[in-house]
Amino acid sequence: MTTVADLGERALIARLFAATGPAPAHVAIGIGDDAAVIEPPRGGLDVLTTDSFVEDVHFRRGWCAPADIGHKALAVNLSDLAAMGAEPRAVLLSLILPDALPIVDFDGIIEGFLALARRARAPLVGGNIARSPGPLILDVTAVGAARRRRVLTRSGGRPGHELWVTGRLGLGAAGLRLLERDASLGPDGGTAESPPSDEGVAECLERYRRPEPRLRTGLLAARSRSVSACIDLSDGLAAAARQLSEASGTGVVLEAQAIPTCPTAERLSRDSGGSGTELALNGGDDYELLFAVSPRRRRSFLAATGSDRGSGVTRVGRLVTEAGAWLEEGDSRTPLSSGFEHFQLR
Amino acid sequence: MTTVADLGERALIARLFAATGPAPAHVAIGIGDDAAVIEPPRGGLDVLTTDSFVEDVHFRRGWCAPADIGHKALAVNLSDLAAMGAEPRAVLLSLILPDALPIVDFDGIIEGFLALARRARAPLVGGNIARSPGPLILDVTAVGAARRRRVLTRSGGRPGHELWVTGRLGLGAAGLRLLERDASLGPDGGTAESPPSDEGVAECLERYRRPEPRLRTGLLAARSRSVSACIDLSDGLAAAARQLSEASGTGVVLEAQAIPTCPTAERLSRDSGGSGTELALNGGDDYELLFAVSPRRRRSFLAATGSDRGSGVTRVGRLVTEAGAWLEEGDSRTPLSSGFEHFQLR
Repeated sequence: MTTVADLGERALIARLFAATGPAPAHVAIGIGDDAAVIEPPRGGLDVLTTDSFVEDVHFRRGWCAPADIGHKALAVNLSDLAAMGAEPRAVLLSLILPDALPIVDFDGIIEGFLALARRARAPLVGGNIARSPGPLILDVTAVGAARRRRVLTRSGGRPGHELWVTGRLGLGAAGLRLLERDASLGPDGGTAESPPSDEGVAECLERYRRPEPRLRTGLLAARSRSVSACIDLSDGLAAAARQLSEASGTGVVLEAQAIPTCPTAERLSRDSGGSGTELALNGGDDYELLFAVSPRRRRSFLAATGSDRGSGVTRVGRLVTEAGAWLEEGDSRTPLSSGFEHFQLR
Repeated sequence: MTTVADLGERALIARLFAATGPAPAHVAIGIGDDAAVIEPPRGGLDVLTTDSFVEDVHFRRGWCAPADIGHKALAVNLSDLAAMGAEPRAVLLSLILPDALPIVDFDGIIEGFLALARRARAPLVGGNIARSPGPLILDVTAVGAARRRRVLTRSGGRPGHELWVTGRLGLGAAGLRLLERDASLGPDGGTAESPPSDEGVAECLERYRRPEPRLRTGLLAARSRSVSACIDLSDGLAAAARQLSEASGTGVVLEAQAIPTCPTAERLSRDSGGSGTELALNGGDDYELLFAVSPRRRRSFLAATGSDRGSGVTRVGRLVTEAGAWLEEGDSRTPLSSGFEHFQLR
């Protein structure tokens, strides 16, 4: 089987370059020079984020098809732009590849990456390929534009503001648990050709492998000026709520009954001895958005985000004056667990 | 010894954040939100580049002090901005760290990175820290600004244009050869406390560990409008000359006698059976700039680059009509070797 080492760096970059389509007008210089050059957003601000996607830390090759790996490495970065209310303008991809990576896998990774880049209107303008003595790594930088005074930050929430999330939570983490339990659910089991018989299982696997960044919801929410703070949910609802409230200088209460999840995630949460919302709260891998919204702006927020079909928003809690983070279940309040840490959990 | 795994991701990010100074005015939002937000350059263009720095591929921990690693990971990116004639505006750093990395090494890496960032006026606006199951990796994205119609590219050279380089070549590669031969030249041998007795050796080691991106020369050359094409020399003079000439649709002739090098690099070139310019041509790791200059603009080029003290420029060859790349020694011409490939040589 031909590997990336057989082709060499320049041939791989040429292959990457060939796979990109024609660049939009704001890209003055794309791949192929010492750096890329783009027109800055007219009257807007540059928004910049970088995130790495590391084999055996963030993904396993047995659990994700190459195209899933390319998709997700980009999705987690676009999700950060979404959380700022920014529109993507360009992406850069740094690939660190083991010598033995089959060239068909390289092509698959690029295909998944570029398919999402095209949909998100985020042209690939810069690439770098290096050899890895260990894991396969994709390091992505996403560049976006936000309008002045429309940037969403974590720090604008105030006591009394409601917390709203997009979509349903815990599905990404449920997908991961399913793969950990049953290797036969690997890429070949999760494709359209041979979907798992259980629809809920298939949905969780898909969410884990191909999270969809909520770019449109983030952008519409930012433009509506109805949101006081926003963060994405990469590390679970509990961690996101805690970080948003700390940045805003408030406390936070999440309401267990209100948290939108799915039967498969609930079942897996209970299997591991937790309550039905365990994976939604602490599982991570969802890439939904959490918004703080003043009650006075609720109507305008719902008008804006309701126009993004397929996402939908649910009220899950509120910011409070007293510092701290709690989960409310009926009459009882318990402190939220402290959430996800790369060096502790994975 | 305390390791990064003992501290965890958030504590490390807090440590990174604490080490950065106050942000300049164009940074609206720095480290600590989902993404960074900066003012775009007024009337200019955004210039973007990304490059990774991988343990046991681009560096070894035994050969470089932690501060050298941080410095060089940033320097190679700033060198790409220099080659575009761009001024740095911001940098992002993605760290992928083995669990066992001592926290003192983490601090050293950050210190070396931030010291160069400060000098280059390139504030760190975004950071990401993940666990590595293998090598230590720094993936850097540098964001710069270039004036419209002042961007330097690889493709503007024409037959008859002269080729000029900054500094002396082969010193970085000589430093690497010295470390490969003699492990006792490792970080403790190369520091100011106990410098190697041979001044030439010390200079090569320093160049290998702490290349200095030619930001000022690139910027002055771009502003002078005297340069038709530019590239940096990360992979050696031969590869750079070939890439610049191919992008410009010309051939290239390098003149062996004109290539500026140093006695240590010459000696090491001959030791390995090559001519005295072998390391300058094919060694890599120099991070100097190669310019194409029309003879009519030579005077204005020298006026511009002469004002960047300590670098200096030397004429090393010319672009020619016939496609191809040659080395000229007296009356003889030999084809240039094909240069550096990550997957072949390292």
